[in-house]
Amino acid sequence: MTNTVDIGKNKNEDLTAPTPQNTPLSNAPIGREPLSRPTVQTIGEEDDDEDDDEGAPAAAGVPGLPSAAIQGMIQDKLNGLVGRSSGYIESLPDEVRRRVEGLKGLNVEHQKIEAEFQREILALEKKFAEKYAPLYDRRKEIILGQLEPTAAEVESGEAVDREEDAEDDEEDEEEDEEEEREEPRSLANISIRTDAPKGIPEFWLTALKNHVALSEVITERDEGALKHLIDVRLRYLDTPSNAGNGQEQQGFQLDFVFAPNEHFSNTTLTKTYFYSNQVGFSGDLVYDHAEGAAIDWKSPEANLTHRVETKKQRNKNTNETRTVKRLVPTESFFNFFSPPKPPTDDDEEDDEELDAIEERLELDYQIGEDLKDRIIPHAVDFFTGKALHYENPDEWDEDDYGDDDYDEDDDEDDDEAPPRGGARQDPQECKQQ
Amino acid sequence: MTNTVDIGKNKNEDLTAPTPQNTPLSNAPIGREPLSRPTVQTIGEEDDDEDDDEGAPAAAGVPGLPSAAIQGMIQDKLNGLVGRSSGYIESLPDEVRRRVEGLKGLNVEHQKIEAEFQREILALEKKFAEKYAPLYDRRKEIILGQLEPTAAEVESGEAVDREEDAEDDEEDEEEDEEEEREEPRSLANISIRTDAPKGIPEFWLTALKNHVALSEVITERDEGALKHLIDVRLRYLDTPSNAGNGQEQQGFQLDFVFAPNEHFSNTTLTKTYFYSNQVGFSGDLVYDHAEGAAIDWKSPEANLTHRVETKKQRNKNTNETRTVKRLVPTESFFNFFSPPKPPTDDDEEDDEELDAIEERLELDYQIGEDLKDRIIPHAVDFFTGKALHYENPDEWDEDDYGDDDYDEDDDEDDDEAPPRGGARQDPQECKQQ
Repeated sequence: MTNTVDIGKNKNEDLTAPTPQNTPLSNAPIGREPLSRPTVQTIGEEDDDEDDDEGAPAAAGVPGLPSAAIQGMIQDKLNGLVGRSSGYIESLPDEVRRRVEGLKGLNVEHQKIEAEFQREILALEKKFAEKYAPLYDRRKEIILGQLEPTAAEVESGEAVDREEDAEDDEEDEEEDEEEEREEPRSLANISIRTDAPKGIPEFWLTALKNHVALSEVITERDEGALKHLIDVRLRYLDTPSNAGNGQEQQGFQLDFVFAPNEHFSNTTLTKTYFYSNQVGFSGDLVYDHAEGAAIDWKSPEANLTHRVETKKQRNKNTNETRTVKRLVPTESFFNFFSPPKPPTDDDEEDDEELDAIEERLELDYQIGEDLKDRIIPHAVDFFTGKALHYENPDEWDEDDYGDDDYDEDDDEDDDEAPPRGGARQDPQECKQQ
Repeated sequence: MTNTVDIGKNKNEDLTAPTPQNTPLSNAPIGREPLSRPTVQTIGEEDDDEDDDEGAPAAAGVPGLPSAAIQGMIQDKLNGLVGRSSGYIESLPDEVRRRVEGLKGLNVEHQKIEAEFQREILALEKKFAEKYAPLYDRRKEIILGQLEPTAAEVESGEAVDREEDAEDDEEDEEEDEEEEREEPRSLANISIRTDAPKGIPEFWLTALKNHVALSEVITERDEGALKHLIDVRLRYLDTPSNAGNGQEQQGFQLDFVFAPNEHFSNTTLTKTYFYSNQVGFSGDLVYDHAEGAAIDWKSPEANLTHRVETKKQRNKNTNETRTVKRLVPTESFFNFFSPPKPPTDDDEEDDEELDAIEERLELDYQIGEDLKDRIIPHAVDFFTGKALHYENPDEWDEDDYGDDDYDEDDDEDDDEAPPRGGARQDPQECKQQ
């Protein structure tokens, strides 16, 4: 895992997102994520909605992803730590153990307050979603060419560019000092030619392709449909729970809005993420499950999640051949709308199958969360590719990951220990033996 | 990086944190962390407090730590993606580029709202800190033996234990089916012997030692002082900024409260984390810097951050020897109160020095955040070691990380690609070549 804080020189007056030069990819924070990072609920966990959830706050949380720095220490230290079954607690006098039990009782109260905190945070998120909505409406109109941005908006965007350029210049001082950068002319007041393309063609396709995980699943065939994607929007759920217990089922819905296209007749494809009614270990939200829209494919051939396999079969008796078509599942972005189902306790999967499901679930939650928290809010940065630099540890720090990087330390390191004291680690550099 | 979602079988009615069996360590969430994960500010960034920060929201954020699954994809896909310098944007017609600039302008507005969101979240955090405070007061009194927990509190804690045991039994069904677990007698109504230890001795020392990163820095000498640690508390800052621009300097302060001890005369050691006045790329809080208390060591020998080195020096002329003492900096938990200073643009450190500083900064912010969001809220789980299981990827999933784990896939994998499709990766398994 790469874990680097870049030494940049940006100025605080930067009006937009930082440049690759000034932004660490992963400062590997650890604390709980009370808001927008619900965690994967334990697979196989039952959702006992009938229970009084107020008193049952901590079923299956995840206290955040430990940083590489922390992770690097885990292996070494674990055995030396006072653990669950070390007998330490059991060895304490009854009076002391009674006090420890009392603290656990207090913790139950604490977690009730944490659950209340989560509810207020979610309410705040909803309130702000309404504040963002007019900006997203306007963005959609500009993308579709229904409106042109104002000169002020264009100038504001250009000001952002100028500051980034200034930063880059500062960064690259040594390399291209002689290079004269000409001041780009402003586009604020150009006249719009009538034969110019309408809006911003393929805006969302381009934005999604600039998200690393999504770019992995978007096939060339998918692009034919995704170029008709005209908006992606977030809605918070606020509906009574199915369990009929009066509780609201919380979560969020992603709406993918499409122009008419040859693949499916839906105008909107939805993906919905449901939160568990309990908060996790650190008081954070926990995912319950996700659901996707059924896609009305216009024909078997139009179905991007399957390919049509044609096979000649020879009848051994008559020696006649016939052509058999069958639909074979294939990789596609549109599988996003058929999320994996968390297995239940009763499922008989073996460990390997469960591992595979947990990986798919994890990736599905990640992508949903990225769409909610990063792509929808900052779609233009994904369109331009700027957002990419925040995901890419190597682009701006590649000197640190050269072949000779770990030369000095490696000989001394235990194989178990990550290089450089754990705080800096690049999986791409890992060579499995 | 380990990245696994464990397949557990816990019940939702669990009243406390989940067991190792039911809790994934790292579901590797990605989204922004609007609340409790301020990110490491770019080193070398100037804090231009005089600027109107309202309009300058995104100086140096980090959009969260990409998961292993995502990270595994980065290396492969990067070259194929539309990036900053691919020329794609530059190749667009002026009209389209004008619209893209307009969207960037809209994004500036968006980020102002995000900054407002951060302020409201922080206000909510402060409000809830007050709700937690009585529980922390009570915890302190129980730890110090000033109060005994009520029978109801003890019973509530014991109920938590019982549910965990029930889960464990379910988990370990196959292994110890025959093992009869006897119902432990309740401690709720025992009488407190007068010769019993007072409170919970070494509560905070034990809790801190059960935090992986802290356990790395707590030396045996430190333990002599840390056993006098009687409380750790969180306070939010709400003080006018030093910059005199009317803005408040936001952040939080950790108070380590000590009983009288032989090492230092301070009764409280503070560590303060200051947030930047700007939010990051994804609208998240960003650290500015941290400050620690000056420790009043009672003597050079009592100073845990230094060791006294005695050296005999011989005068070459007189042939007389004399003993020279000098204080040599040494590893200690108490270095936590002398956090590294983010270098400024003017600093002349070379890359290696800057790397070392960034690593130390990163770890310092991580530990601060863990104290704030995990250890202080759930200290009893750190004391018992239960919290440890949420940080340890290997304890409950070690089968997945055996030597033979990657056998099948490795031959086909590009060296650059992480094992198992990137979604599962263990740095401890990395063998650097």
